[in-house]
Amino acid sequence: MKAEIIAVGSELLLGQIVNSNAAFLSVELAQHGIDVFYHVVVGDNEERLTDVLNQASKRSDLVILTGGLGPTKDDLTKETVAEICGKDLVYHQQSLDAITSFFEKRGQVMTENNKKQALVIEDSHVLVNHNGMAPGMVLETDQCKFVLLPGPPKEMQPMVVSELRPLLEKDNVTQEKITSRVLRFFGIGESKLAAMIDDLLVNQTNPTIAPLASEGEVTLRLTVKHYDPNISIQLLDQVEKDILSRVGEYFYGYGETTLMEVLSKQLKKHKYYIAAAESLTGGLFSSALTSISGASEIFHGSIISYATKVKENHLGVPNKIIAENGVVSAECALEMAKAVKRKLQSDIGISFTGVAGPGTQDGKKPGEVYVGICGPNDEAAVHKLKLSGNREAIRQRTINYGCFYLLNELKRWNIE
Amino acid sequence: MKAEIIAVGSELLLGQIVNSNAAFLSVELAQHGIDVFYHVVVGDNEERLTDVLNQASKRSDLVILTGGLGPTKDDLTKETVAEICGKDLVYHQQSLDAITSFFEKRGQVMTENNKKQALVIEDSHVLVNHNGMAPGMVLETDQCKFVLLPGPPKEMQPMVVSELRPLLEKDNVTQEKITSRVLRFFGIGESKLAAMIDDLLVNQTNPTIAPLASEGEVTLRLTVKHYDPNISIQLLDQVEKDILSRVGEYFYGYGETTLMEVLSKQLKKHKYYIAAAESLTGGLFSSALTSISGASEIFHGSIISYATKVKENHLGVPNKIIAENGVVSAECALEMAKAVKRKLQSDIGISFTGVAGPGTQDGKKPGEVYVGICGPNDEAAVHKLKLSGNREAIRQRTINYGCFYLLNELKRWNIE
Repeated sequence: MKAEIIAVGSELLLGQIVNSNAAFLSVELAQHGIDVFYHVVVGDNEERLTDVLNQASKRSDLVILTGGLGPTKDDLTKETVAEICGKDLVYHQQSLDAITSFFEKRGQVMTENNKKQALVIEDSHVLVNHNGMAPGMVLETDQCKFVLLPGPPKEMQPMVVSELRPLLEKDNVTQEKITSRVLRFFGIGESKLAAMIDDLLVNQTNPTIAPLASEGEVTLRLTVKHYDPNISIQLLDQVEKDILSRVGEYFYGYGETTLMEVLSKQLKKHKYYIAAAESLTGGLFSSALTSISGASEIFHGSIISYATKVKENHLGVPNKIIAENGVVSAECALEMAKAVKRKLQSDIGISFTGVAGPGTQDGKKPGEVYVGICGPNDEAAVHKLKLSGNREAIRQRTINYGCFYLLNELKRWNIE
Repeated sequence: MKAEIIAVGSELLLGQIVNSNAAFLSVELAQHGIDVFYHVVVGDNEERLTDVLNQASKRSDLVILTGGLGPTKDDLTKETVAEICGKDLVYHQQSLDAITSFFEKRGQVMTENNKKQALVIEDSHVLVNHNGMAPGMVLETDQCKFVLLPGPPKEMQPMVVSELRPLLEKDNVTQEKITSRVLRFFGIGESKLAAMIDDLLVNQTNPTIAPLASEGEVTLRLTVKHYDPNISIQLLDQVEKDILSRVGEYFYGYGETTLMEVLSKQLKKHKYYIAAAESLTGGLFSSALTSISGASEIFHGSIISYATKVKENHLGVPNKIIAENGVVSAECALEMAKAVKRKLQSDIGISFTGVAGPGTQDGKKPGEVYVGICGPNDEAAVHKLKLSGNREAIRQRTINYGCFYLLNELKRWNIE
């Protein structure tokens, strides 16, 4: 079954709003094993809408429209669909009553154009709008099935869940369900990861494997189609096993999570308190850590030692270390991690020092960064990074690598 | 000139991401007087992409594509455009060098599929990618003009501003130029601001005045059309003067700036060093301050005193203050600001303490927040906030109010 989603509204073509309805509906359709091949946005223009509808009815089995069901003159979705299907518009009594009582309740006069919202295409199945005035419609034609939904997400989404979803489930002849699993990787580029699992990508059928790069991370979305959910899980497990046997060292989590969320969970699990000594990151790590609720179980505080004198006088990095190695050095990073752990009586100290740019510092280029880690038994680790990008990218990547390195240390500490 | 925006990527059709690129580009094109008639999303499928491109080249003069320029097998935008235009792909040396040095910097091996990103359509004008590897392209054909842009907004948006916008301005045949000026306001709601300038909004013609609310701020975009840039400036100045005579106290800056950028400039101007004592914000203020380059001129460091014992033992808030008032109090906020100023030998101390939620703290509800300020001559100010929203919204609004209050204090200190 081939589906197409058409959003009607000039405000979308002006960029005043983003077409989030298409994404919502695509996820819904995927759940029912329906492939979406096109999203289209067209303005409040009868001629162009007619063209788009004629094309859609030829190339798609299911055509879902959002928007253009309102009371004003430029709302012409149902009029145009009715026109190309040779249908009339008729009043839907239940909707008309709802609209009338809406205005009575508020003691307002119902204008004529509001009645227009109660008009539906003859022979269509009406989808009740529990959150607005314009009802939705499902119209079966010889060529395809049209679904008309209101534009406002607050009306459209609940209508899909309560009115459209039951129909989709009834129609789902194959009974094939789509199940997805997202694997998240860090510390490896999309192209390198793709190269390392190239044969799996080439031979993918069911499950399919879709790589996506974002924010210095790579995700693989595994999507399987099967009528038996247990077999779906088995197929996903097998492909995941094959993938992780190649690139497991870069894997850190499933689904919509972040490195910081995974780290936060691990720290809570091990009952570790962490403190940070932040130089180039200026509080970015601690801010991200405390953005997750329940941070007080794993975090007392941090010291932002931006200036050298704060590293020495306040944090307590030995003057000798800085004099001999400079502040942008592995030695300084290590001392910062040890010092902040001690000063704030925590189990783990982590430190970030380096050059965020745009200028150089002590002759070091932007992107030269050191991450220091001091563990519960004073296990010490320090990592050197060479990062590219602008100031913000370097700072963000620095804390991402910090989370990734610390997660690896946590594994090591708890194996040994 | 009729334009069409085509996004290429199966992740869009699966609803994994929303097509925000189309909205961004639509706004950009509207600024240049170009009408956008269609948005289309198509998957990583050569046959369907070919159909969409053929249709677009017939019905549109300008066809902008986003996505599908990456290194993997399913990236095939430029290949397909080249194919239907009967063009070859050739290596773009500058891009190839950039990609090569990207990997050399990291000491990583460049895989073959990365070279693919340096391939461009022959005879096309290359748009340099300053934030990623895949360059953009502009290809003029007899039928239409194709513009190929990368999919990630972090790469696409700056490429449009620095590379594509100048070309659009050159093409703009109507000599009437559009000039915009954005005024930024904080501490006032959109509806209240609109009410205070209602007559200006009603009578607006040229310039037009467009209010927009976002992130607890309100912006007014003034847009004027005129052949003579000097007259445009005069028209904008006059409307700005009228607006600020009503709501000037809430105005803080022009264009794409932030409260923190304005504060940073003011601190540099007055040669003040600032230190923060952050509790509920957990480093968010210091992180935002240091995200602006040159922070070392105004910032030595901060203390993130998340736990009470850090406020007492490390920061040095008198135990008596906390015992009598609790940590979520004006008294504690004031002592935190004084203490951090003293501890980090700065000119200004600012503090944030309160309840970020979701849970209550010491019987105080989420959103009860105190901002303390201690000035160069120990001028003391403390503000109580009642904020709504989730944990992140409360934390973000807290530092926005902190910047706004401190900006007002800076004015006062330097008048007196």
